[in-house]
Amino acid sequence: MTDLQSRPLIDLDAARTHELDRAHVFHSWSAQDLIDPMVVTRAEGSWLWDGEGTKLLDFTSQLVFTNLGHQHPRVVAAIQEQAATLCTVAPSYANAARSEAARLIASHTPEGLDRIFFTNGGADANEHAIRMARLHTGRQKVLSTYRSYHGGTQLAVNVTGDPRRWSNDAASTGTVHFFGPFLYRSEFHATTEAEEGARALEHLEHLVAMEGPQTIAAIMLETIPGTAGIMLPPAGYLQGVRDLCDRHGIVYIADEVMCGFGRTGRWFAVEDHGVVPDLLTFAKGVNSGYVPLGGVAISAEIAATFGQRPYPGGLTYSGHPLACAAAVATIRAMEDEQVVEHAAHLGRDVIGPALRELAARHPWVGEVRGTGVFWAIELVADAATREPLAPYGGSSPAMGAILAACREEGLLPFANYHRIHVVPPLTISDEDVLAGIAMIDRALTRAHAAH
Amino acid sequence: MTDLQSRPLIDLDAARTHELDRAHVFHSWSAQDLIDPMVVTRAEGSWLWDGEGTKLLDFTSQLVFTNLGHQHPRVVAAIQEQAATLCTVAPSYANAARSEAARLIASHTPEGLDRIFFTNGGADANEHAIRMARLHTGRQKVLSTYRSYHGGTQLAVNVTGDPRRWSNDAASTGTVHFFGPFLYRSEFHATTEAEEGARALEHLEHLVAMEGPQTIAAIMLETIPGTAGIMLPPAGYLQGVRDLCDRHGIVYIADEVMCGFGRTGRWFAVEDHGVVPDLLTFAKGVNSGYVPLGGVAISAEIAATFGQRPYPGGLTYSGHPLACAAAVATIRAMEDEQVVEHAAHLGRDVIGPALRELAARHPWVGEVRGTGVFWAIELVADAATREPLAPYGGSSPAMGAILAACREEGLLPFANYHRIHVVPPLTISDEDVLAGIAMIDRALTRAHAAH
Repeated sequence: MTDLQSRPLIDLDAARTHELDRAHVFHSWSAQDLIDPMVVTRAEGSWLWDGEGTKLLDFTSQLVFTNLGHQHPRVVAAIQEQAATLCTVAPSYANAARSEAARLIASHTPEGLDRIFFTNGGADANEHAIRMARLHTGRQKVLSTYRSYHGGTQLAVNVTGDPRRWSNDAASTGTVHFFGPFLYRSEFHATTEAEEGARALEHLEHLVAMEGPQTIAAIMLETIPGTAGIMLPPAGYLQGVRDLCDRHGIVYIADEVMCGFGRTGRWFAVEDHGVVPDLLTFAKGVNSGYVPLGGVAISAEIAATFGQRPYPGGLTYSGHPLACAAAVATIRAMEDEQVVEHAAHLGRDVIGPALRELAARHPWVGEVRGTGVFWAIELVADAATREPLAPYGGSSPAMGAILAACREEGLLPFANYHRIHVVPPLTISDEDVLAGIAMIDRALTRAHAAH
Repeated sequence: MTDLQSRPLIDLDAARTHELDRAHVFHSWSAQDLIDPMVVTRAEGSWLWDGEGTKLLDFTSQLVFTNLGHQHPRVVAAIQEQAATLCTVAPSYANAARSEAARLIASHTPEGLDRIFFTNGGADANEHAIRMARLHTGRQKVLSTYRSYHGGTQLAVNVTGDPRRWSNDAASTGTVHFFGPFLYRSEFHATTEAEEGARALEHLEHLVAMEGPQTIAAIMLETIPGTAGIMLPPAGYLQGVRDLCDRHGIVYIADEVMCGFGRTGRWFAVEDHGVVPDLLTFAKGVNSGYVPLGGVAISAEIAATFGQRPYPGGLTYSGHPLACAAAVATIRAMEDEQVVEHAAHLGRDVIGPALRELAARHPWVGEVRGTGVFWAIELVADAATREPLAPYGGSSPAMGAILAACREEGLLPFANYHRIHVVPPLTISDEDVLAGIAMIDRALTRAHAAH
């Protein structure tokens, strides 16, 4: 026992880590024989180290979830403390970590969304939100946008509106997709944000009428679509959705799995639009992903539907104490260290100006857009036609060259088809974020010159 | 900062914990206004403490997942150590904890199931197993048994064959249910285990023929159905299923979320039947639930389907390092401390004899059955008619009285409708498990006398 405990529990060098990965780990969203996973041996703040000891600036927050950066000492300490106290307990009990996490989350969610159903991540949060909406309304249909991502389980991937849905599209019972507002690639032939917002809303109203309002349980929207492109909704659009839902008794589900918990420079992105959804889903930033956790914040009206009759859903790890303790520490750190205010500052004073300046100089940059620490660089082959630099759902040599150049510069970039997203931790310093944008700048220059 | 760290992060007494729970926590599978959750303040091994400081013997392993009991020091230390090293990393990377967990799991799964896809729990493990089977076969339909539970997300709850499916049954595209073997309540009018096994297999063969073998992607079976009643398959039944699948190119998915990782006195329950499924799903016992983790162990043939084309599925926390480190420590502790061997001993030498003796004395006990630390006590109002002591999907005053008496005895019982399951941690001592069975014994006596 003693010698077992004196050496590290897991003691693999990078080569052995890679070898075992290739032998035994089946990776998400990948052709297993065509990938060569980078080994990550260490990470701290906005930085991580690969198997060769190369230090890289993490402009991805992994999958946009380490909002506090890697290894925040207060969250690490909270996990260690909770592990020593009580790692786990079944969902039927009350537990201090679970109660305190629910209270803290509810203290930041929009008014009235005070009851928290905990899940393991964003996909099951969205699945349960849809279930609540269906049972609350007695209707089946769920409307969601093209250019969206709502998770990888069957129902969640079927309400998703990106190419990840295509291979799983056989069981899409009750899911309907529509186009949301996106001025740069307007489906509505609009030329201003105001026009785009008005026309997109009118389109949704027509679609609801055609589908039959009385058949629609929910409209599910990422407040700001994330992986699909960080398209900020025009002013008034979400209020229009809220009104439309109210007129027809449709549940408004805001998916804030990626954009919630400070990412946009607000605790939740809906705050910028003055609307309160009926259900709000979260994950990722709630505890910076240090322990798997997601959830649904529920309005009093929908919670009351399940007051006297059972909610027919659940999961073994709902409200997992270790995950909840990490959430408590994360939220307190965000409060004490003014992380959300810093995110707003970064977007307003640092990232926004720097990206606009970069856009003015690079012919491949069609548009930059975003808020807080949530930005997209839209890369186009032709600024006039706006032809993407890689096709929808695919890649291209030009994109490959840009991403390789980013890595050579020492940056870990977040890419999706023809876009690069600037989504580092919310805690990144002004200096580091400018250094990272400078790396993208040089990478664009080099790749364009070689093209 | 200093004073923040000198007091515990979460410092709620039992009353405040309960108050915040009632204000903010939305519970699984519950009518929210009709529950009064017990506060759990502390747990150790097979014991836990409620808000009043009462010590209770945990005969549930929570939801049959704390196979190592509460707060196993080696798993706690592993979580603390991994938290200090690297809490999390995106699924696309290779990482020592993830590689080592995959290797260790693959060293125990049946031969050939060497590639591990990690999920957050059992529900998404089953969802992804079905997706792999559908894409591997190009077929949609999934067959599963009545009296089964496969998880709470939409697809998982639709292949489930218990009352939790009923309220969610609108989107059951491609799911077909059938009766599996269960001699005590035989659907096939059988009188011996051998006859039950043969007839149940014949029934499944007929059903496959009627559904059309070329339309069936997968047959998904809990090797031993868990919450639905711990019905051990008769000798030869699973081999028959394996052969049937082979004849028709159907994927055999073994759901070992509850029965895997030592629960039955074997690493995996299929070992007792000499069959190797194509996909095996796990969660719970893989790391005793200390951190949310599940997964799919994949055959070489199915993994090869996703060698050159991408597997269209994934999740943010796939292969979460903290969860994987807990799995590494759990599996090593199970190996070093001979936990699986102890589980087999408990079933053979302690629980089995004690429950059979109890059954002989109590008129309400219709049958006891199980293996390892996985036992059901089937309670009936009438031994001749085998009328359950509570209806399917419901409760009864007699069951309520028994469960209340168990609690008064100091036991936390696992109940499902008219059954009590004996499912304590695998690490429970002979003495404690006998003490717990004696509590059930006295509870049955008291409740029956008062009836």
